[in-house]
Amino acid sequence: MSLDRLIEKIVETQNPTVVGLDPKPEYIPDFIKTRALAKRGETLKATARAFWKFNKGIIDAVHEVVPAIKPQLAFYEMIGVEGVKVFHKTAEYAKERGMFVIADGKRNDIGSTAEGYAAAYLGKVQVGSSEFSPFPADALTVNGYLGSDGITPFIDVCKKYDKGIFVLVKTSNPSSGELQDRLVDGVPVYEVMGRMCEEWGRESAKKYGYSGVGAVVGATYPEQIAEMRAKLPNTFFLIPGYGAQGGKADDLKSAFDSRGLGGIVNSSRAVMCAWQKEKCDERDYADAALREVLRMKNELINITGEIRL
Amino acid sequence: MSLDRLIEKIVETQNPTVVGLDPKPEYIPDFIKTRALAKRGETLKATARAFWKFNKGIIDAVHEVVPAIKPQLAFYEMIGVEGVKVFHKTAEYAKERGMFVIADGKRNDIGSTAEGYAAAYLGKVQVGSSEFSPFPADALTVNGYLGSDGITPFIDVCKKYDKGIFVLVKTSNPSSGELQDRLVDGVPVYEVMGRMCEEWGRESAKKYGYSGVGAVVGATYPEQIAEMRAKLPNTFFLIPGYGAQGGKADDLKSAFDSRGLGGIVNSSRAVMCAWQKEKCDERDYADAALREVLRMKNELINITGEIRL
Repeated sequence: MSLDRLIEKIVETQNPTVVGLDPKPEYIPDFIKTRALAKRGETLKATARAFWKFNKGIIDAVHEVVPAIKPQLAFYEMIGVEGVKVFHKTAEYAKERGMFVIADGKRNDIGSTAEGYAAAYLGKVQVGSSEFSPFPADALTVNGYLGSDGITPFIDVCKKYDKGIFVLVKTSNPSSGELQDRLVDGVPVYEVMGRMCEEWGRESAKKYGYSGVGAVVGATYPEQIAEMRAKLPNTFFLIPGYGAQGGKADDLKSAFDSRGLGGIVNSSRAVMCAWQKEKCDERDYADAALREVLRMKNELINITGEIRL
Repeated sequence: MSLDRLIEKIVETQNPTVVGLDPKPEYIPDFIKTRALAKRGETLKATARAFWKFNKGIIDAVHEVVPAIKPQLAFYEMIGVEGVKVFHKTAEYAKERGMFVIADGKRNDIGSTAEGYAAAYLGKVQVGSSEFSPFPADALTVNGYLGSDGITPFIDVCKKYDKGIFVLVKTSNPSSGELQDRLVDGVPVYEVMGRMCEEWGRESAKKYGYSGVGAVVGATYPEQIAEMRAKLPNTFFLIPGYGAQGGKADDLKSAFDSRGLGGIVNSSRAVMCAWQKEKCDERDYADAALREVLRMKNELINITGEIRL
């Protein structure tokens, strides 16, 4: 179990960015949608085809400069079975192109059900004497509300296949405090959860100081990022909420250690919709995505300095 | 938004039971698996085919005496895209046979991502001028760790299509207390979450006294069931953990109001594996499931008395 491959990719690309591939029809250039509709008619298959073409274009453009993608499962499930197929294809393709794939499913359950999710995204499934990876991700986001029974089945699978998880600790949304900021014996719930992450990661390999159990900590809460970095020295952060949700680059400084490691910052809309913001030719959407990714890389590398193992 | 159709089905069948359809290869009779392997070879398609045949047999056997099924999405995702297809087919078939379908996905996210999950399971998706239901469920289990931002998008969709959600409050597993029992200003986290359910359900229709925002409360914690029933008068309970996990019928008494309403009790393994426990001919697995369901119905109706609207 580890996030070592992710960390190595971050150092290789000198870029602590993960591109969120959360396709929505309104993010996709018309020429892609028109072609898909012409081929498949007004069906979910047409939307699925458009999602795939769009994703492929972005992966082709950014895979050499970005270490990872993070597809949000909701956007694929939203178009049914056809969408789930596109998620599978996207994950597989990104891995072929050398990227680390974080499936953002926020899955959670207990016992054999959690084992099911773990096998689905991080493990293997046996049929007779043959083995299959149902959805080939490298890491999965999970929700720890159910306690250890909901996390250890994921850890067992991560140990077997050298995968990782990211547990929701302090989420980026405005109402995250309704539960997460409430005090338990003077300690906020997000810190209780964060400390559990350290505990769950205790027996993990930590080649670069970080375990295979990461934490989701929102860019919109810079004070909490700083606090959690200090209190969770072995927990790697997945940081959503940068850009569109209001998180600023300067606020992220405290997420990183002196080597520039410790976190990876997600950007979804800013990358997918860069062509709309630039008002460039829609056929250049992938190049616009690359330009945005490079802009963000510069912004972050100014903060982290050279990233070292 | 409501759970009224579920409540009406419970009264019609006089049975506050939901059958968890969580297929695993070891629960499935050999004759089904052998046929599927012969037809599809050692592939996930073969497992998917076995799951579908097994589910269909159980639905055919129990649909007149059980109000609802609760497929656990993990078991379908575990066999990849083919499994997700079987989930779709199972939900559609159960609805055709008049059953209420609770998709047990414990989904959770914020903003447009939560809207995505809501559309996927409870709503509709537009392609051009055509509309589709990606996965046709009547209710979905959700995790409220992210606060209102993670719940209101589901509620908006429920309002539009008269669907419901069940929020995790006090889960049935041994370690649920690690977070859920911790005290926030003297109030356990599960109660904080439960009170949010009442709040989220405030504007829902309540034809029979219960809103469209239900709560998951484990049968393994009878004291908490009693406490939550008293404190959450408008919140309908989905109760896992009965049977295999150790929850007993007598412990459930307090979940129900004086009309016998207020909760629905899940049984998965005891129903799916009744043929193994009975040691009957494996070809009678569906009849064995029916016998178990009737046994459980009698047990529960002894507690609730005649169930009335």
